[in-house]
Amino acid sequence: MVGGKSLSGHEEKIRLGMVGGGVDAFIGDVHRIASRLDDHYVLVAGALSSTPERAQQSGAALGLDPDRVYDSYEHMAKAEAARPDGIEAVAIVTPNHMHEGPASAFLRQGIHVICDKPLTATIEEARALAAEAERSGALFVLTHNYTGYPMVREARAMIADGLLGPLRVVQVSYAQDWLTEEVESKQAAWRTNPAMTGGGGAIGDIGTHAFNLSQFVTGLEVQGLSADLQSFVPGRRVDDNAHVMMCYGGGARGMLWCSHVAPGNENGLKLQVYGVKGGLEWAQEEPNKLWYTPFGEPKRLLTRNGAGTGAASLRLSRVPAGHPEGYLEGFANIYFEAATAIRAKKAGKPVPQDVVYPTIWDGLAGMAFIDACVRSSSNNSAWVQFVDLTP
Amino acid sequence: MVGGKSLSGHEEKIRLGMVGGGVDAFIGDVHRIASRLDDHYVLVAGALSSTPERAQQSGAALGLDPDRVYDSYEHMAKAEAARPDGIEAVAIVTPNHMHEGPASAFLRQGIHVICDKPLTATIEEARALAAEAERSGALFVLTHNYTGYPMVREARAMIADGLLGPLRVVQVSYAQDWLTEEVESKQAAWRTNPAMTGGGGAIGDIGTHAFNLSQFVTGLEVQGLSADLQSFVPGRRVDDNAHVMMCYGGGARGMLWCSHVAPGNENGLKLQVYGVKGGLEWAQEEPNKLWYTPFGEPKRLLTRNGAGTGAASLRLSRVPAGHPEGYLEGFANIYFEAATAIRAKKAGKPVPQDVVYPTIWDGLAGMAFIDACVRSSSNNSAWVQFVDLTP
Amino acid sequence: MVGGKSLSGHEEKIRLGMVGGGVDAFIGDVHRIASRLDDHYVLVAGALSSTPERAQQSGAALGLDPDRVYDSYEHMAKAEAARPDGIEAVAIVTPNHMHEGPASAFLRQGIHVICDKPLTATIEEARALAAEAERSGALFVLTHNYTGYPMVREARAMIADGLLGPLRVVQVSYAQDWLTEEVESKQAAWRTNPAMTGGGGAIGDIGTHAFNLSQFVTGLEVQGLSADLQSFVPGRRVDDNAHVMMCYGGGARGMLWCSHVAPGNENGLKLQVYGVKGGLEWAQEEPNKLWYTPFGEPKRLLTRNGAGTGAASLRLSRVPAGHPEGYLEGFANIYFEAATAIRAKKAGKPVPQDVVYPTIWDGLAGMAFIDACVRSSSNNSAWVQFVDLTP
Amino acid sequence: MVGGKSLSGHEEKIRLGMVGGGVDAFIGDVHRIASRLDDHYVLVAGALSSTPERAQQSGAALGLDPDRVYDSYEHMAKAEAARPDGIEAVAIVTPNHMHEGPASAFLRQGIHVICDKPLTATIEEARALAAEAERSGALFVLTHNYTGYPMVREARAMIADGLLGPLRVVQVSYAQDWLTEEVESKQAAWRTNPAMTGGGGAIGDIGTHAFNLSQFVTGLEVQGLSADLQSFVPGRRVDDNAHVMMCYGGGARGMLWCSHVAPGNENGLKLQVYGVKGGLEWAQEEPNKLWYTPFGEPKRLLTRNGAGTGAASLRLSRVPAGHPEGYLEGFANIYFEAATAIRAKKAGKPVPQDVVYPTIWDGLAGMAFIDACVRSSSNNSAWVQFVDLTP
Repeated sequence: MVGGKSLSGHEEKIRLGMVGGGVDAFIGDVHRIASRLDDHYVLVAGALSSTPERAQQSGAALGLDPDRVYDSYEHMAKAEAARPDGIEAVAIVTPNHMHEGPASAFLRQGIHVICDKPLTATIEEARALAAEAERSGALFVLTHNYTGYPMVREARAMIADGLLGPLRVVQVSYAQDWLTEEVESKQAAWRTNPAMTGGGGAIGDIGTHAFNLSQFVTGLEVQGLSADLQSFVPGRRVDDNAHVMMCYGGGARGMLWCSHVAPGNENGLKLQVYGVKGGLEWAQEEPNKLWYTPFGEPKRLLTRNGAGTGAASLRLSRVPAGHPEGYLEGFANIYFEAATAIRAKKAGKPVPQDVVYPTIWDGLAGMAFIDACVRSSSNNSAWVQFVDLTP
Repeated sequence: MVGGKSLSGHEEKIRLGMVGGGVDAFIGDVHRIASRLDDHYVLVAGALSSTPERAQQSGAALGLDPDRVYDSYEHMAKAEAARPDGIEAVAIVTPNHMHEGPASAFLRQGIHVICDKPLTATIEEARALAAEAERSGALFVLTHNYTGYPMVREARAMIADGLLGPLRVVQVSYAQDWLTEEVESKQAAWRTNPAMTGGGGAIGDIGTHAFNLSQFVTGLEVQGLSADLQSFVPGRRVDDNAHVMMCYGGGARGMLWCSHVAPGNENGLKLQVYGVKGGLEWAQEEPNKLWYTPFGEPKRLLTRNGAGTGAASLRLSRVPAGHPEGYLEGFANIYFEAATAIRAKKAGKPVPQDVVYPTIWDGLAGMAFIDACVRSSSNNSAWVQFVDLTP
Repeated sequence: MVGGKSLSGHEEKIRLGMVGGGVDAFIGDVHRIASRLDDHYVLVAGALSSTPERAQQSGAALGLDPDRVYDSYEHMAKAEAARPDGIEAVAIVTPNHMHEGPASAFLRQGIHVICDKPLTATIEEARALAAEAERSGALFVLTHNYTGYPMVREARAMIADGLLGPLRVVQVSYAQDWLTEEVESKQAAWRTNPAMTGGGGAIGDIGTHAFNLSQFVTGLEVQGLSADLQSFVPGRRVDDNAHVMMCYGGGARGMLWCSHVAPGNENGLKLQVYGVKGGLEWAQEEPNKLWYTPFGEPKRLLTRNGAGTGAASLRLSRVPAGHPEGYLEGFANIYFEAATAIRAKKAGKPVPQDVVYPTIWDGLAGMAFIDACVRSSSNNSAWVQFVDLTP
Repeated sequence: MVGGKSLSGHEEKIRLGMVGGGVDAFIGDVHRIASRLDDHYVLVAGALSSTPERAQQSGAALGLDPDRVYDSYEHMAKAEAARPDGIEAVAIVTPNHMHEGPASAFLRQGIHVICDKPLTATIEEARALAAEAERSGALFVLTHNYTGYPMVREARAMIADGLLGPLRVVQVSYAQDWLTEEVESKQAAWRTNPAMTGGGGAIGDIGTHAFNLSQFVTGLEVQGLSADLQSFVPGRRVDDNAHVMMCYGGGARGMLWCSHVAPGNENGLKLQVYGVKGGLEWAQEEPNKLWYTPFGEPKRLLTRNGAGTGAASLRLSRVPAGHPEGYLEGFANIYFEAATAIRAKKAGKPVPQDVVYPTIWDGLAGMAFIDACVRSSSNNSAWVQFVDLTP
């Protein structure tokens, strides 16, 4: 009945720091819970806020040693690198335009980086960071958290195993409604400020998740796209709805829709993939289910840890089938994968083959996607070829 | 508990003829059932097949007077027009390329036409037929049957009443899987033969349904589109999958996906509409349900004939809420609307305002849609402006 | 893509009469549509109302020859039996307490009877009618219409074929909400009047449907039951909610819930069956779907006319998978089965083995079920053994 | 967008011990994750296994100080009570027959107890434990974890607020399939061993969850019941399927079904409640949703943290609507409530009114439920009155 994931009984915990994520910052809390769930990390240091007072308050609230509550990431990177008990990894949970600086700083110190998405605000920053990551011996983990859902892994394995045959069609969407009207909140403020996002709105905030998920599951890479971005809410300076047509390597075609203004949609991330031999459908709001539709046979509903599922999902599953796992468990799986990779690295061993997490290259691809969408849309939706960004 | 539709107790029945639809022709049977369901029509004549022997057999099987089983529609149009008890309306259920000829012939005789979709095979034929319909005093009803579903009517009325506010986003799709592999059947044969379809494949067969539904429900008109059509099955001469981005009058944007090659999809026609104040979602495979999502309020599931539904759906509903109505009932509603219009015409009265059915102009718009999609796709998905086809 | 049911092209139509069902009577209209859908019947006579004026009006509205609009069923039975073109079958659609009289009268004349459920108001009437049916050479068809849904047939065939292994557990329920408050309508009036129902309320009106469905699908027979009937609405004289525990032949156990007072439930008839090797689940509000859950394998969703379905459902299916059929089509299937049986009878041939419809014995079992529930409930829910009512 | 739950930034952590739950024991891991999720506890001691070697291994794996890894709960209770830094609370996660001993031992030392359900193996043990809990100043928290789901809290608050009016009907079920066949596993072994369960099988393991949930949400108390328990699998010594009819205080009636042998059901815990003014439906496998069906209005789908939800669910919600929370988060909410209560106790303050968790009395009621079901079933399903077990 129980999944294959060993839930507890671990080696020494990995010492973790955090940049951003002062108390009450939503995503900071999510990263902390995710790091704590499987008990592989202990949070010991932070540059939690750019406001020193708030940084100290947050550090105290989190029970950090005041000596390890820093007023800047630069200071933190150096100080922690110098300590014998310094952090081994750092979580970066600041807004987009504040990713590249801290990430590079820690990578330069050989400290592993776990960074929120999208990778950076601009593609130039992304390239610089990628170069830094290449130079560094440290790991770079991007929290495209939806790739951590067990049934997303199951879908990926099924396609890799050829169950769908050559792929033809990909439909992916991510619809929300929280920016349907003008919103005044910290969350909304930076997500609709081009200076802080890098120019993209919905396309960067959630479109990249959809894009990443489609590539992660199918194993295909987008080669070109045609996009139509809109800003519906008066005064909004970034897109809040986007339509994209895509062609993938191997001849598959796809469509992507993302929206911040679709009333009734909370976190409607959905993926449909169709090949010569069958189809798959998955939706983030019911993440424990996966529809598998072999052509000419009855539809099958696979459930996490349920009958007929394989190793790829079982190894990231904690509780029996029918006991739902959710967003935090999926997020925690990224931290779980990272922990395994960090420990392998520490032990001088190769990272086990079944450990999978989004890397700097996924982040770079996401930035190229945003860039291509913005360029296509401003050029009357002309098709834009994807540039290979691998250095 | 019971709908507002008077189910029986009718005036004299309308005399109906049929062109095409020999026994075992799927769509012919559908039209016959649809015409029979509410008891407003009696089938009395037919040119049921281009093969005389098969025409006679079919006529006999349907209990037609042998004198009124014709070997050609031309002959039938003239002979019926000459009879004092001649047909008042004719159903045309032939393949696309055989619509314009018979439709024009009967219109010229002042006989009302109920015609299957898409309107014709080519846009030239469509224009000719539209001109004929303009000249004729007879009615032209196009069986875009999905517009007959009560909850589609409910959605349309809700939008017309302003419940969604100004519209922003339309997502519509129609996915099937029956042509995933090369298929040899009469159904498949003509639908994949460009000479008989007019050039479109999925885009004409089911894409037009999706297009029509989106316009019917929203009241918006497509003003431009960018399309990417594919033929995935080797040797297929028409598209079997299509991606379209659209802009509507008033600034709304939309996406349309249709596919003949998406395994696991039977008749997956789905529509989502989002406005400033709320959203609506409807799916053909569960036609008795309609999701209404006013922004900032709990989602509501409206059901046909259930609490909170209005006159637009009630007048086309036969049985109590929770007793599902389906495809045939929706199709029959088109025949019901047509019957009311025909009787009003006969009585020299205006057609009641609540009677709604797809007309020649909807058919022409559908042909313009197919044409624009094909042109855009062959021109690297460049945006194509919709030409106003109203003569 | 299309079902195995030949939709049209029939032999001479069966002449049908109707008792009850004046215009605006819901169930009368349903029977008329059901008889008309596949074009096997023609309505030619009726005793449509006990009020002569209303009977004449209804007859005229239905286009009946005024000579064949009768003021009583006795008169009608004799007159029609005497005509060379007299009715071959009669539909009885009166309230429960008015079933036995007309049914017996027509059976005595050798006219086939298609009768609404439950069989009668009292078990004594049921016995008398069963005896009459035994004596008569005519057929007796009871419209437990839910047995006409194709996927109910599929479920029945799967169990008969042993796919579930020996059965263990049956869960069946039928929940409605229309009598949640005191209601004044013709529909409600007779259904809550013990003199007209025979004593049962929800248990007779909808509980019998649930009971019948469970026996029809499983092939099991209830051998004993323990019931708890309630009347929640003040002043109500019959039960409006009922709980029943049942034991079936072969050791299976079951529960049945029916309710007229469960807000949010429209026609929530649901059946779950579990055996040693697997389970099945079906719900009337989504009748085109059937869940099949073989133990230890992924769940499978079967769809009407879809992949993996068999002859039992295909022969009663009209339109392709994904084009929903509903309540009226299911009801029409009972009329279709009856037509085939009547024609076989007329031709002196045995009724084909695959023709299935509820008979007088199903009706008698339903009456025994109501009787046993009422007796158990009034005796502190003591288990009541089912008496074999076969004469 | 974010829930009302403060996710981090806590006071000093509560020192927690554990009895049972050696590494690889499913429920031990669940309790550990639940205690860790919100960072209110630190695990510092344990009597993790009755096998000393295994106890030490487990302690080491969990990073416990070897001095605080005990070979018996008696020893642990005394030693921890004597330490200045001794545990403040203990989690008891042993099989049923091993609850009363340790729980009483820790209560006697004034250490708070968080105990798995059902309360004990026998009703005599339950009474003894209740007496001990009464005497002790320490808290007793029973992990009927499903009461921790936010939407279960929402349902409870809606009923308490009178949204459903006086209640009439309760339908609750908990279906699983994992014991459909004879199973050899540690999990299965003790759950089918009457000596370790206390006599009940499915009725104790999952029936009590269903019973508890129905009382928790409705605020009603069962006053009598009639039960039919079955053991379908050959050789099984406890029930594996149970049917129960219940009457609640205030005149409401209910049915309960639980099963270990219903193929296709994973953790199918479902609750439906109907009152004079409306209904509610909730299912554990989709715990973030709650159907609310006010009579005569459209159905509404409430979502965790979504539009229209109230304080009762928001305070236990961590992530935005549409990002699913699951089983572990619900379980963690019980630990969160316990932490708040423990801290209030420590501070000499009353437990805040909005803090809710299952207590010793809920445990006692559950034991009375099992006892009543077994007695009724063995007495031909005669109604058994519930004895008030409050001392």
